[in-house]
Amino acid sequence: MSAAVEPPRAFTAEDYASRMARVVDQAVEVGLDGVVVAPGPDLVWLTGYQPTAITERLTMLVLAPGATPTLLVPVLERPDAEAAVGAPALTVRDWTDGTDPYAAAFEILRTEGQYGMSDATWAAHLLGLQRVLPGSVFRALGECLPMLRAVKGPDELERLVAAGAAADATYEAIVGLPFAGRLETEVAADLARLLREHGHEQVDFTVVGSGPNGANPHHEAGDRRIEPGDAVVLDFGGLMYGYGSDTTRTVSVGEPTQEVRDVHDIVRHAQQAAFEAVRPGVSCQEIDRVARAVITEAGYGEQFIHRTGHGIGVTTHEPPYLVEGEQQALRPGMCFSIEPGIYLGGRFGVRIEDIVVVTEDGGRRLNNTDHRLHLVG
Amino acid sequence: MSAAVEPPRAFTAEDYASRMARVVDQAVEVGLDGVVVAPGPDLVWLTGYQPTAITERLTMLVLAPGATPTLLVPVLERPDAEAAVGAPALTVRDWTDGTDPYAAAFEILRTEGQYGMSDATWAAHLLGLQRVLPGSVFRALGECLPMLRAVKGPDELERLVAAGAAADATYEAIVGLPFAGRLETEVAADLARLLREHGHEQVDFTVVGSGPNGANPHHEAGDRRIEPGDAVVLDFGGLMYGYGSDTTRTVSVGEPTQEVRDVHDIVRHAQQAAFEAVRPGVSCQEIDRVARAVITEAGYGEQFIHRTGHGIGVTTHEPPYLVEGEQQALRPGMCFSIEPGIYLGGRFGVRIEDIVVVTEDGGRRLNNTDHRLHLVG
Repeated sequence: MSAAVEPPRAFTAEDYASRMARVVDQAVEVGLDGVVVAPGPDLVWLTGYQPTAITERLTMLVLAPGATPTLLVPVLERPDAEAAVGAPALTVRDWTDGTDPYAAAFEILRTEGQYGMSDATWAAHLLGLQRVLPGSVFRALGECLPMLRAVKGPDELERLVAAGAAADATYEAIVGLPFAGRLETEVAADLARLLREHGHEQVDFTVVGSGPNGANPHHEAGDRRIEPGDAVVLDFGGLMYGYGSDTTRTVSVGEPTQEVRDVHDIVRHAQQAAFEAVRPGVSCQEIDRVARAVITEAGYGEQFIHRTGHGIGVTTHEPPYLVEGEQQALRPGMCFSIEPGIYLGGRFGVRIEDIVVVTEDGGRRLNNTDHRLHLVG
Repeated sequence: MSAAVEPPRAFTAEDYASRMARVVDQAVEVGLDGVVVAPGPDLVWLTGYQPTAITERLTMLVLAPGATPTLLVPVLERPDAEAAVGAPALTVRDWTDGTDPYAAAFEILRTEGQYGMSDATWAAHLLGLQRVLPGSVFRALGECLPMLRAVKGPDELERLVAAGAAADATYEAIVGLPFAGRLETEVAADLARLLREHGHEQVDFTVVGSGPNGANPHHEAGDRRIEPGDAVVLDFGGLMYGYGSDTTRTVSVGEPTQEVRDVHDIVRHAQQAAFEAVRPGVSCQEIDRVARAVITEAGYGEQFIHRTGHGIGVTTHEPPYLVEGEQQALRPGMCFSIEPGIYLGGRFGVRIEDIVVVTEDGGRRLNNTDHRLHLVG
């Protein structure tokens, strides 16, 4: 029942080495002496290494021009680090419990360096590095190299396409199941099961926002029993071959009110307009503005309380962000959600979301299920 | 089949208000103007609030003397924040996508303030705050208030006791199941199932390190088939009523070699000696030294490659850390693991771990299964 016939070719140490080299080039271009990366999506993307847990123990990759990439790890995690696919491209160094990890870090950083640092690094680690390297400057990678992972290569797009198709298959299946009289959590469990059946190795979120719960965009799924006449926001995704899916449709349990139909139409038009605006060179904020204009003109601007979208890759929230103020231009290979919504507090919400990849002359949807309001049972 | 007959009394807004007030007092004592807390265990412990995901969007609790605790959240997460049990004790403020969250944070912080910051706050957020508040100083809470959550109250100990008992019941059950010929991952799945059956709402780790895999202390569970004669490290835990369990036993599949018996005896003696050294006033590093001395005298000092233990509460790794250099004194109510181990690369490992709480005149184990080498089938 898996959506994917054949898994993609696995990433190799050479793939990771090439990514690390590209990042060093980009870092130099923006005036950095190097990049410091803690465990999380940046490290996974650069090396394939993911510690079993992100803890208070310092793990840190340092990339700098003219030097072999160096990964500093707690000694007891050394075997795991050395088993990572990207390890052959790295020098692995370690530190031992009871010694100062920042003293070990000092050895592989410059005293007057300018470093980009992965956003999700623990503040305690940044403060430890600032203490031992008072002359060095650290900047958030999200600020100085925001588009580090934003342009996807063919080997990444292949995975995102598979993840999107599996999410679509999940949606096609869920609308055939009963909604009325069931708990949100029961429908959410079905979504999780279906994502796995269609090839996801990880389920990250299964939002089932029925009736008034749909008006809270971050509501997950609760013990509310779904009723006939409810609008239900279904927003779900996870990882497949290490890459994310994320799609939203809003369905109606039986006949909707005219208001639900109207609001759904507005969101659908906003999503379509934003999608049609996608092409290389257009700014991220322009896509947000296009979606927002449709909703504002229809009188619901105040009820569209979030940005229009976010990038997706090895994680489901990453640059580029489609948000006012983000002036970066779209480039072929960028991959992100377009997900306008309208939230009517205490009553219902509507959101429609597809993942879209920028092509040479426009955009291509990685989610392709019907946008029309689907009536479920 | 749940180990707990009656769930503990739920925490109330008053409980959280009281914790926040205590933290403000402690902060003032060490010369801080306040404390900044991002999502994670500190925030859960202080407010009961846990966003559905920790993302790039700034969420931040500010505690300062003479002010109502203020929680700054992305506007779209406001409903979730206001639904937290601790919310009545908070002023909730929000910021909107497309505006600068650090400008919003600036409004609730002092321009020349000294702040403690939760360790796991994203570095990007710390850098954002350092940018808008160049005259303020931020320090890691793990440095300036390391024992913030270390002393557990009776309502917390009740939960830790229940979690420990459930982990013990899991161990008692797993040793009755077959090991020889099964994959590590299969035994790990049994551990996860048993933890849930005995009342855990979350399983965090199920280490099954058989034969040579046991020599890697952070090995989780792999596709190795367990063989007769293997020593197998079982290290598992998760959350029950929001509080952690974490216990380790090393078993033998059939008759062990004399070397496995000898190494197991050494680790058992080290664990026992460290436990007997626990009492108020003794330093954290002293417990580490006691365990290490036993192992070093037996000739395996180089093979005990990690600290002796870590605190446990709403998370399974927190202060106090039993490690060389940690001079903090033990106090009644502190709760931590004692888990010495010996790792013989490429062959096998042995670790024995109990959670221990400091009492008025010694220590009390929250794990009470037999320490002797158990022979499984």
